[in-house]
Amino acid sequence: MEMTTPAPAGDLTRDPARKSVQIARFVGGMQDSLASLDRCPKPVICAVHSACIGGGVDLVCAADIRLASSDAWFSIKEVDIGLCADLGTLQRLPKLIGSESLARELVFTARKFPATEALQAGFLSAVHDDKQALMGHAVELGSQIAAHSPVAMQGSKINLNYARDHTVAQALQHQALWSSVMLQTGDIPAAIASARKRKSPPPFPPL
Amino acid sequence: MEMTTPAPAGDLTRDPARKSVQIARFVGGMQDSLASLDRCPKPVICAVHSACIGGGVDLVCAADIRLASSDAWFSIKEVDIGLCADLGTLQRLPKLIGSESLARELVFTARKFPATEALQAGFLSAVHDDKQALMGHAVELGSQIAAHSPVAMQGSKINLNYARDHTVAQALQHQALWSSVMLQTGDIPAAIASARKRKSPPPFPPL
Amino acid sequence: MEMTTPAPAGDLTRDPARKSVQIARFVGGMQDSLASLDRCPKPVICAVHSACIGGGVDLVCAADIRLASSDAWFSIKEVDIGLCADLGTLQRLPKLIGSESLARELVFTARKFPATEALQAGFLSAVHDDKQALMGHAVELGSQIAAHSPVAMQGSKINLNYARDHTVAQALQHQALWSSVMLQTGDIPAAIASARKRKSPPPFPPL
Amino acid sequence: MEMTTPAPAGDLTRDPARKSVQIARFVGGMQDSLASLDRCPKPVICAVHSACIGGGVDLVCAADIRLASSDAWFSIKEVDIGLCADLGTLQRLPKLIGSESLARELVFTARKFPATEALQAGFLSAVHDDKQALMGHAVELGSQIAAHSPVAMQGSKINLNYARDHTVAQALQHQALWSSVMLQTGDIPAAIASARKRKSPPPFPPL
Amino acid sequence: MEMTTPAPAGDLTRDPARKSVQIARFVGGMQDSLASLDRCPKPVICAVHSACIGGGVDLVCAADIRLASSDAWFSIKEVDIGLCADLGTLQRLPKLIGSESLARELVFTARKFPATEALQAGFLSAVHDDKQALMGHAVELGSQIAAHSPVAMQGSKINLNYARDHTVAQALQHQALWSSVMLQTGDIPAAIASARKRKSPPPFPPL
Amino acid sequence: MEMTTPAPAGDLTRDPARKSVQIARFVGGMQDSLASLDRCPKPVICAVHSACIGGGVDLVCAADIRLASSDAWFSIKEVDIGLCADLGTLQRLPKLIGSESLARELVFTARKFPATEALQAGFLSAVHDDKQALMGHAVELGSQIAAHSPVAMQGSKINLNYARDHTVAQALQHQALWSSVMLQTGDIPAAIASARKRKSPPPFPPL
Repeated sequence: MEMTTPAPAGDLTRDPARKSVQIARFVGGMQDSLASLDRCPKPVICAVHSACIGGGVDLVCAADIRLASSDAWFSIKEVDIGLCADLGTLQRLPKLIGSESLARELVFTARKFPATEALQAGFLSAVHDDKQALMGHAVELGSQIAAHSPVAMQGSKINLNYARDHTVAQALQHQALWSSVMLQTGDIPAAIASARKRKSPPPFPPL
Repeated sequence: MEMTTPAPAGDLTRDPARKSVQIARFVGGMQDSLASLDRCPKPVICAVHSACIGGGVDLVCAADIRLASSDAWFSIKEVDIGLCADLGTLQRLPKLIGSESLARELVFTARKFPATEALQAGFLSAVHDDKQALMGHAVELGSQIAAHSPVAMQGSKINLNYARDHTVAQALQHQALWSSVMLQTGDIPAAIASARKRKSPPPFPPL
Repeated sequence: MEMTTPAPAGDLTRDPARKSVQIARFVGGMQDSLASLDRCPKPVICAVHSACIGGGVDLVCAADIRLASSDAWFSIKEVDIGLCADLGTLQRLPKLIGSESLARELVFTARKFPATEALQAGFLSAVHDDKQALMGHAVELGSQIAAHSPVAMQGSKINLNYARDHTVAQALQHQALWSSVMLQTGDIPAAIASARKRKSPPPFPPL
Repeated sequence: MEMTTPAPAGDLTRDPARKSVQIARFVGGMQDSLASLDRCPKPVICAVHSACIGGGVDLVCAADIRLASSDAWFSIKEVDIGLCADLGTLQRLPKLIGSESLARELVFTARKFPATEALQAGFLSAVHDDKQALMGHAVELGSQIAAHSPVAMQGSKINLNYARDHTVAQALQHQALWSSVMLQTGDIPAAIASARKRKSPPPFPPL
Repeated sequence: MEMTTPAPAGDLTRDPARKSVQIARFVGGMQDSLASLDRCPKPVICAVHSACIGGGVDLVCAADIRLASSDAWFSIKEVDIGLCADLGTLQRLPKLIGSESLARELVFTARKFPATEALQAGFLSAVHDDKQALMGHAVELGSQIAAHSPVAMQGSKINLNYARDHTVAQALQHQALWSSVMLQTGDIPAAIASARKRKSPPPFPPL
Repeated sequence: MEMTTPAPAGDLTRDPARKSVQIARFVGGMQDSLASLDRCPKPVICAVHSACIGGGVDLVCAADIRLASSDAWFSIKEVDIGLCADLGTLQRLPKLIGSESLARELVFTARKFPATEALQAGFLSAVHDDKQALMGHAVELGSQIAAHSPVAMQGSKINLNYARDHTVAQALQHQALWSSVMLQTGDIPAAIASARKRKSPPPFPPL
């Protein structure tokens, strides 16, 4: 996938307006493809090693949890070739790291953002010595999440996404409506029973 | 208060729609009760020691400033019993710590979030060696805040809340309207006079 | 500029409503003046040394990147004289540092916020030993940004500003429309050609 | 109830800022009282005869359906005594009649808005010859609404309110979540069975 | 298509939470299918004769222009069978007819809304004596629209949709960005040249 | 003023991106110029005779009250020359007439919208036989508005504008803050005293 190609050529006329409609469809389609990680109701974990540049940063910004090995580094390289980071980085990064300041510096300078700094900035949840430890953590974390009630887990992601994009009051109202049906699930008594016996919960039926 | 009880039983019929209306009222009522800390125009300080779990996290997320002793730890435990953290944690935590990444990891794993990590993440403003030092700080901080003009203090909280939930331009417009009346208060010349004499301000009349 | 003067006196009648209309115009005008840094499509860098208090904090909060010397410190002093920090600090600071907690503590206590803490909190991008190193960095950073395509640089700032004030989905839609025309610029092939030859890009025509 | 009294006197100090906090509480309380018609999940019908002025217009604007006798007339009289129609008329009227033009003319001129014109403008749903016919219609309409499933009726009002205040896409999303539980009600098969037999539905249990 | 079927049966477990996730997908999918008329950048014309009930009203509400024959009538029948009009009627109707009052009365009473009243209320753009005249008008209107520049026509629909869901200021900003590229189209000089010669415009290339 | 000129020529380079920045500034500037009617805190009355086409419709849509003579007609002519009605018509018209249906038909067909139809649709507040009667009404209406308290009149317009662009709840909150200071004006007792004596109010001091 050539993320930096401005647009599919050839079939375009030379009218800037018609070109722009085609480019908007192309960019929108790629944004939508990456946003599928964000829309997916299940938590998405991303494990990164070595260089993660341009469209790669757009991709990992759409995940829920980012892990990396210590050799990983990120670069929002787009301005170096006359582009905006237009597939999601500008839209999601400031909210991931909670700092407009750092986000803008990274975007405007295209500098290397190494794993250790990214850990400290909250962009990464953990940094591991090597790829093996990294993948081990990612799989373990995924298994741990998958063992929980999917009603609770997906409800949490959906409401976190909703809260990101609404006021606190609107998000509480949405949460109450969500809980009004989800609290009727049989997963809750099953999970409570396991918790009381300090045992692993039973496998929950899929959603 | 049993925050994890799904809903008051007994008086519910078995119709999922009717049950849901009752649960929504119940959850909404509890959300509203915790949100009273948020709506209160006076700054609210929270001092935490030892375990703060589930509904406890919902509660402290609604405060303005959080202090803790070094033995404090937090856990968004809800997914372990099949629930969402539906009383405010999902809605407020990401904005408190400015990291969607860390917030999601804490929610999805239900892991311990110890005081030292919470301090570094900006969830806590200070960590003290013991409960006595903690309470001393909380009371001192409260006294310091209470000695200021309530017009200035409450106006600051109200506008911080407003800014959290609106665009920068909308929040500036609200602030200008607020200031247009509040700058007419007699508290300002009184506070300026004290500041010039480097003396404590006079007790301000209540609001 | 006396930022703490409540309002121009003299020409005001004694009617609180009429006074308030005049104050709102005055405050709105000052907000708008500082917001010109925010609205400016070019990235704005701020270099701070020594004390930065009250209206000074409002000012630097409207910039994109903040650098400081190690003797710099900040104080949101307004509550000490009965005021709100009503020219932008309450509206922008929590989003700059990604922590409602720290922002509220700084606003309610008016305490010193030294350069080192501000660096760690993400309020500053760098702290330098002395003023000379500070100014050197600021100028170098500005030159580096200025050497890039203004289409890419200004598009990045405009879309970061848009994303700050909208939902992720709305911001992606805006970005796609923006990219639909901006990807037609000749700056992109020029920048790519330079990048391939590992040479500095040519001077881009102004926007 | 004297709706045009600016504020409770006596206990107010002479500080415009402190006065304003008290007035805002007073006005907010009255707005909230009228908004209870709007928040009430059951449809609210208003029957109006003769003069309906100032606060009366604020009141009927918060209802769902307005009926009147032919002698009824409305007047947004506030500007005549130096006031805004600040208890809901300015906020709800333009959306009720779908015309910013007519709403503004009525507000700025304080002119009489007679029942026949109000019917044509969509402000009223019906105009009756006399008070008896009016009350008969109101009671009949209320009985007809009350005979339906409260799940369907309240869900319709709640989602109409939600749609008024959100984008179409947001409102559809809210509706789908609402329907996801409400379609599980036993009221639906009961209502369908009655509809097939062309009989009145059974009395539905309360919500 | 059976629009009133609550949900696909059989494959559902008896857990209200799991059922609700499936129903939400089902309802969301149907909403999305009807919303394709709304999202379609080309104007959509709807010609209605005879009864248009329930899901039929949801459908025609998603079109841009509605025409009908004089025998047409509408009924938002959902409350009669315990349902909400949850596929778009509650979300779009009040904005189509500009009257919360009439919309609520139609929704709460499920009464017949005949073509003549619908014309007067602005729900229909024209009412014709018979089906032939109706179809003739619809085809003629469609041809007339299709003969115009698709850049102008689709841009108008997209910006009308945007304006419906945003503030006036936001919608103007979106429009300016849209126009910034669309005004570069060759369709404009071609259309102006035709207009000057008072001739039909040339066939415009597709978008 | 040539409103249909795409953009100032000559000084534009041939880069579609650079052109677009210049066009956006040009269109934005013209939008802003027309929006001054909307932003003006005083009610704006528009008197229209004969043809009102294209940019003329953009202009009158930004006024508060529209009057016309019976020979007046409107046409949103832009699509006929390949343009969008991009200076405010698409953004304001649907809210003025409360009908997405009629607005879209007028925009897509560019047909004549005569004064009588515009009166019925709520676009006009009155239609007069000739220009003299029209101007007489406009001046009389303006005098009547100007004789009222400017605090009440401007507060009404500002809050109507705010309500148009916010939810009912947000608009009520803004109104309460506004009233909290405006109810302290001396205009209210003066206006009430005049009203009691059934005399014209005294000339109010300007705002």
